[in-house]
Amino acid sequence: MSQQVPKKQWAQVIEKTGGPVDYKEIDVQQPGPDEVLVNIKYSGVCHTDLHAVNGDWPLPTKLPLVGGHEGAGVVVAKGDLVKDIEIGDHAGVKWINGSCLACDFCQQSDEPLCPHALLSGYTVDGTFQQYCIAKAAHVARLHKDIPLDAVAPVLCAGITVYKGLKESGARPGQTVAIVGAGGGLGSLAQQYAKAMGLKTIAIDSGEDKKKMCLEQLGSYAFVDFATSKNLVKDVQAATEDGLGPHAVILVAVNEKPFQQAAEYVRPRGTVICIGLPAGAYLRAPVFESVIKMITIRGSYVGNRKDSSEAIEFFRRGVIKAPFKVVGLSELQSVYDLMHKGQIAGRYVLDTSK
Amino acid sequence: MSQQVPKKQWAQVIEKTGGPVDYKEIDVQQPGPDEVLVNIKYSGVCHTDLHAVNGDWPLPTKLPLVGGHEGAGVVVAKGDLVKDIEIGDHAGVKWINGSCLACDFCQQSDEPLCPHALLSGYTVDGTFQQYCIAKAAHVARLHKDIPLDAVAPVLCAGITVYKGLKESGARPGQTVAIVGAGGGLGSLAQQYAKAMGLKTIAIDSGEDKKKMCLEQLGSYAFVDFATSKNLVKDVQAATEDGLGPHAVILVAVNEKPFQQAAEYVRPRGTVICIGLPAGAYLRAPVFESVIKMITIRGSYVGNRKDSSEAIEFFRRGVIKAPFKVVGLSELQSVYDLMHKGQIAGRYVLDTSK
Amino acid sequence: MSQQVPKKQWAQVIEKTGGPVDYKEIDVQQPGPDEVLVNIKYSGVCHTDLHAVNGDWPLPTKLPLVGGHEGAGVVVAKGDLVKDIEIGDHAGVKWINGSCLACDFCQQSDEPLCPHALLSGYTVDGTFQQYCIAKAAHVARLHKDIPLDAVAPVLCAGITVYKGLKESGARPGQTVAIVGAGGGLGSLAQQYAKAMGLKTIAIDSGEDKKKMCLEQLGSYAFVDFATSKNLVKDVQAATEDGLGPHAVILVAVNEKPFQQAAEYVRPRGTVICIGLPAGAYLRAPVFESVIKMITIRGSYVGNRKDSSEAIEFFRRGVIKAPFKVVGLSELQSVYDLMHKGQIAGRYVLDTSK
Amino acid sequence: MSQQVPKKQWAQVIEKTGGPVDYKEIDVQQPGPDEVLVNIKYSGVCHTDLHAVNGDWPLPTKLPLVGGHEGAGVVVAKGDLVKDIEIGDHAGVKWINGSCLACDFCQQSDEPLCPHALLSGYTVDGTFQQYCIAKAAHVARLHKDIPLDAVAPVLCAGITVYKGLKESGARPGQTVAIVGAGGGLGSLAQQYAKAMGLKTIAIDSGEDKKKMCLEQLGSYAFVDFATSKNLVKDVQAATEDGLGPHAVILVAVNEKPFQQAAEYVRPRGTVICIGLPAGAYLRAPVFESVIKMITIRGSYVGNRKDSSEAIEFFRRGVIKAPFKVVGLSELQSVYDLMHKGQIAGRYVLDTSK
Repeated sequence: MSQQVPKKQWAQVIEKTGGPVDYKEIDVQQPGPDEVLVNIKYSGVCHTDLHAVNGDWPLPTKLPLVGGHEGAGVVVAKGDLVKDIEIGDHAGVKWINGSCLACDFCQQSDEPLCPHALLSGYTVDGTFQQYCIAKAAHVARLHKDIPLDAVAPVLCAGITVYKGLKESGARPGQTVAIVGAGGGLGSLAQQYAKAMGLKTIAIDSGEDKKKMCLEQLGSYAFVDFATSKNLVKDVQAATEDGLGPHAVILVAVNEKPFQQAAEYVRPRGTVICIGLPAGAYLRAPVFESVIKMITIRGSYVGNRKDSSEAIEFFRRGVIKAPFKVVGLSELQSVYDLMHKGQIAGRYVLDTSK
Repeated sequence: MSQQVPKKQWAQVIEKTGGPVDYKEIDVQQPGPDEVLVNIKYSGVCHTDLHAVNGDWPLPTKLPLVGGHEGAGVVVAKGDLVKDIEIGDHAGVKWINGSCLACDFCQQSDEPLCPHALLSGYTVDGTFQQYCIAKAAHVARLHKDIPLDAVAPVLCAGITVYKGLKESGARPGQTVAIVGAGGGLGSLAQQYAKAMGLKTIAIDSGEDKKKMCLEQLGSYAFVDFATSKNLVKDVQAATEDGLGPHAVILVAVNEKPFQQAAEYVRPRGTVICIGLPAGAYLRAPVFESVIKMITIRGSYVGNRKDSSEAIEFFRRGVIKAPFKVVGLSELQSVYDLMHKGQIAGRYVLDTSK
Repeated sequence: MSQQVPKKQWAQVIEKTGGPVDYKEIDVQQPGPDEVLVNIKYSGVCHTDLHAVNGDWPLPTKLPLVGGHEGAGVVVAKGDLVKDIEIGDHAGVKWINGSCLACDFCQQSDEPLCPHALLSGYTVDGTFQQYCIAKAAHVARLHKDIPLDAVAPVLCAGITVYKGLKESGARPGQTVAIVGAGGGLGSLAQQYAKAMGLKTIAIDSGEDKKKMCLEQLGSYAFVDFATSKNLVKDVQAATEDGLGPHAVILVAVNEKPFQQAAEYVRPRGTVICIGLPAGAYLRAPVFESVIKMITIRGSYVGNRKDSSEAIEFFRRGVIKAPFKVVGLSELQSVYDLMHKGQIAGRYVLDTSK
Repeated sequence: MSQQVPKKQWAQVIEKTGGPVDYKEIDVQQPGPDEVLVNIKYSGVCHTDLHAVNGDWPLPTKLPLVGGHEGAGVVVAKGDLVKDIEIGDHAGVKWINGSCLACDFCQQSDEPLCPHALLSGYTVDGTFQQYCIAKAAHVARLHKDIPLDAVAPVLCAGITVYKGLKESGARPGQTVAIVGAGGGLGSLAQQYAKAMGLKTIAIDSGEDKKKMCLEQLGSYAFVDFATSKNLVKDVQAATEDGLGPHAVILVAVNEKPFQQAAEYVRPRGTVICIGLPAGAYLRAPVFESVIKMITIRGSYVGNRKDSSEAIEFFRRGVIKAPFKVVGLSELQSVYDLMHKGQIAGRYVLDTSK
C-alpha cells in the first residue's frame, strides 16, 4: 500500500435506514488482492442514493452504509493480482462495484445481473467518502484528459441511458422518443442518441424544456404531454410517415407514460423501460401488442463494455451534463433539495470539502 | 383460365356479423394478374374463424364473408404475371392472403404488419369454399409429398408457434416454457421447440395433458397450474439452475399467465405473447422487469419465410398435429363444439362434402 | 397511359459488346401491370456502365442495350396493379430494376440476390434514355424536396457504401477504415459513416486526398498507402488502443488492399468487400484469421430498405456527393475520361440535352 | 491447501522444442488466490499438443513445458478468492487456462481473444500431469454424472466445433456442410449440428466414413471429395433447392477445401474456418464473393459460455466421442501414431498409469 494514503478519512455515513447521513471521520480500508483503493475526488448524487437512505426499494442495504456510486478519482493502492491498472491512474467507481465474473450472467457480459454483484453505496460502501474500495476488473478506466468532476454523473446516468439506447436496437437514421426528456437522464439520452446517429422526439412539459430540447439537446420535435390533447397521435404525427418512433426510452418516473408508449411506438418497435417509479406496473393491451409485434424491455445499468463506450463518447466532447459542485459535507442539503424536486441538472460532491 | 374450373362452387357464407354460416352455391372468382386460384381440398378451422363470425375483435370483417385461412389445395388458374408457380402445383392459403410487397414493413420481410395486408376469411374471402383466390407471392408452396389434410392446421397454428419460438431468441440447448401446452397451439409448440433443439417445460392442467406432454410431445417437465401452490417457484425449480426458463411462449387464452410469466422467466429472458384473450392486458412490475432486464414481445403470424420453414419441419415428419376430418357442410357443428370448448385437436373440413 | 408521353425519345444505345454507344431516337416503351414508366431527368454514370459496354464481367448483358442505373425522374405512367405511387411522383431507378418478390432471397429482403433480378442498364434497358421502365415495387420513392441531379449518384454509389457500412456490423462510436477513401465511393462512405456515429480512418494516397478526407469528409486520421513503410502498423496505430479498426470497408479496385485488411483489422473485426477489381482474389492466412476470429464479407448493393434509408440520410443534408452535369448526348466523352482515369467526383447526365 | 495433495507427481515434460516428452516426477504447484488445483484424472490428446512439441506454430511455448489441454478431474485445493467452486467438485481444464477478465475482449465475452490469455499446455503447464493449476473463473464446471474419461475430448474438440456452429449463424432447419466429416472434429460437428436442429451434409472420402456419417452421425447426405467429378455441383445438388448449404464448417487440415467452400456455399451463406492447416491461405474470388454476399469467418475456441453449453449437450447424452484410454506414461507412443496419421477417434490418457 502506497504510503501517502491516510488512516482516516471523511465520509457521509447512514447508520440506520431512514437516515440521516452523518458527516464524520472513519477508517480508510485496504484493498483485497483483486481490488483497488480509489481516492475519490468527485461523486455525483443520484436519486438512487436517496432510495438507499430511505430503504424504499425491495432490496435491503448494508448498514452502516456509505452511499454514492458515481465516483471519479485516482487509484492509490491495489492488490497483488491487479495487473492492468496502476497507482496514479484515474478511475471511476460505478453502481456495479464488483461481480463474480464466473456465473452464467457474467459469462455473457451481463455483469449487472450477477446474483453476487456488489452495489456501490448500497450493498458495499460507496463514493461518499474520500477513499473507496472497488473490484479492479470493474472500475472504469478514465483517460487523464477527462475532467473528474464533469464525468461523475456520466458514470451512472450517462451509462444507463446509453445502455437503454443500445438495448432499443434502434439503428442510425431511425427515430427514438425520449419520455422525460427534460430531466437529467432525458437530457443525456438526447445527446447520446444524436451521437449515435438517431433522431429524437422529446416528450416532456413546459416552454423552457421545449426550448432546451430543441435548441440545445438536438431533438427535432417536442411533444408536451401536459398540453397535448392526444399524446399518442401527436407523437406518431411527429414521425415522417406517421407510424410512430422505432423506439421509446422511458426515463420518466411516473406510471402513465409506460402505458402510452406501447400505443404510439411503431409496429415492430421497442419500448425501453429505465425509470423506476415506485410500485409502478407496465401495462399494455395484449391484442394490439401482438398484432403490432411490439417489444417491451427493461434496461438496467450498463455492463463494463457499455460503460467504457459511454465514457468514450463523453471524452470526445459530444455529451454535456450540466452539474453544480458542492462539498461532500453538504450532502444532506442536496437530499433536501431532491425531496422537494428542486434539482435541475446533477449535483457533484467535492470530497475535499 | 384452365377449362376444368367450374362456374359455381359450394361455400360457407356469413351474411351478417353474428352469423349463422350459410352453406350454399356461389360463383367461382377469376384470379387477377398477380393472383392464383386454388382448388381448396381441405381447410382447418381456427378460433379466429369464430371471432370473424362473432365480430368481437377490434377490426371489422368484409361482409358477406367466406371464412377460413388454413386451406390446402391445387392451383387451377393463375394470372399473367405469375411465373414461379404452375397449374397443378400444390399450395396453401394462409391468414395473410396478400400484402403490398412495397411498404416499409414488406421491405423488411414483416408482411404481416403491412397496412394493406389482405386477411383470408376476414377482409377477403377465405378457404371455406372450393375455389379460393390468393396473391401468388403469398401462397405457401407445398411439396407434393405433403398430405393436404394434415398440413391444413400447420398453415396457421404451426406457423404461428414456430414464429413465436423464433422471436423468443431462444437458442438450441436453452429452455422454453410453453403456457397452454396441452392445447392445439401448445402441442405444436412443444414439437417445434424440440425440433429446434430446445428443451421445454409444459405448463397446463390435468393428468391427461401431463401424460401427453411428457410422453408424446417431448417436454422434460410439466407444471400443473391448477395444483401448483407456487407456480413461479415451481417453474423456476424445473430449470437446472433454478433461475427460470430462457423464454416463455404464451398460447393460453386467459390473462393471468401473462402476468406470472414475467415473474418466472430468467433474467434477460423473453416472454412471447401469441394467444389473444379478449380484452386482456400484459402487466408486469416495472422494478423487477428493469432489474432483470426482461423482454416482453408480441408475436403475430409468420411471414412467408417463417411459413416455408415451418412447413418444411412438418414435411420432414417431426411435427404431428392430430386432426379430425368432417365435410365443409358441417362447419356450423364444429363452431358449436368450439363454443362449448369441446374440441381436442384440430377440425379439418373436406370441401368435397 | 398519360397523354403527354411521347412515342419517341433520345437514348444512348449499345448495339454490340465493346461499344460504341450510339445516341439516337428509339421508341418509348409502355409499362406492364406492375411497372412504372419514369421520365428520367438525370442519370449518374458509374464504372459498372463501362463494364457493361466492355462485357468484361462474368455475366452477359442484354443486346442491344440502353445502359445506366442511377436515374432520377418523374413517374409518367403506371400499370393497373400499381397502387402506392402516383403519376407525378418522383422516383429513382436503381441497379436492381426488379425482382420476383417471391423467392427465398426476396422473402428475406435480399432482393439483390434474387436469381430473377432484373438489372437496369445490364439485363434490361436502363437510365441513359428519357423514359425508362422499372418494376413499381423497386423504384426508389423520392421526396419532392430532393434535387434530381444531386441524388443520382446516391442511387448507386451512396446506397452501396451505406449497405456496406450496415453489413460491417460496426456500432456507433466504433472505428472503420475506408480503403480508397479519396474516390467517389470512399468519399461517400466517410460521410455515411460519420452520420451513423462511426469514426473513420481514411486510407488513400496524396496530400490533396488527405486534406479532403480530414477537413471535409470527417475522418480523424489518414494513412497514405504510398508513403507508409508499414501500412498494417500505421493503420493499427491510428486506433486508440492500437488493436486496429472494428471494420474495414474496401472500395478500392486493386487486389493488394484486400489482403492487408485482414491483417490490420481488429480481432473479431469485419472486412467488407465492395470494390470489384477484375479477376482479383480475397486472400488471408488461415492461422491468423482463425486465431483473431475475423470476418470477411462481400457486400453487393442495398435492398429497397437500405436504399430508402440511404436516400433519407441524403435528404437530411448530411451527405454531399460532388458531381458535374453534362448532356446525355455526351456519354461517350465521359467514358473516354473514365478510361483515362481522369474523373474526380461523379458525372451526371441531363437527358434533355 | 488440503492435506491429501502430495508434494510430488508424475508428468510428461518437454524440455526443449522438438521434444521428446519426458515422463518423470516433478513438484506439485500451489494455486494462487484466484486459482484452483485440479487432480487431473484423464486428459485427451489433441493435434495441438503435437504442434506444441514441434514448435511449428507462429507462437512460442513456455519451456520446459507440461503439455495437454483437455483435462478432467477433481478440485483438490483453491485460493482464498475462489467462492463458487468447492474442493471435491469436478472440473475441466481447457485450452484457455485463464484470461485477464478485464480487457476489451474479456468484457465482451471473447476471452479467447484476450491478449493476456494463458494457454494450457502451451504458455502455462497443462494437463499431462496429475495436478494442474488453472484460473478458477475459467475451469469448466462438470456435473458429477459426467464420466471424466469420456468428457476429456469434448473439452477441446467438442467445444470448438460447437462454437463454430454457433458462429455460422445457421438456424434450426437449415443445412450445414461439414468438411472433414469423418475425422474427430467432424464427427463431433455432425452430432452437435443434429442436436441443434440443423441438417448436415458430410464431406469426406471413403465408404467407411460414408457409412459412419450417414448411419451413425446423422448426416442426410455424403459427398466424397475423392470420387466427385464436380464437388461444387455435388454439394449444391445435395440441398433441396440446389442453391447450396447455408453454412460450411471447415475442420479439414488441407488448403483446397477452404477455396471450394466459398464456391458452393449458398448466397448470403457463411464459411467457418476452424482447421489450421500449416501455412494455408483462405482464397476466394472477389467478384463472386461480393455478388453472392458470402461471409468467411475464423472461429477459434469457445468462450466459457460456449464451453458450458457444449458440455451440457454432452451430459444429455446426445454427443458420443469415441476414445481409447492409455496411461499417461504412454504419451510418446500416441504422438508416434499421430505422426503416422494412424489415429481414429481420440486418445485419452489415464494419469494414474
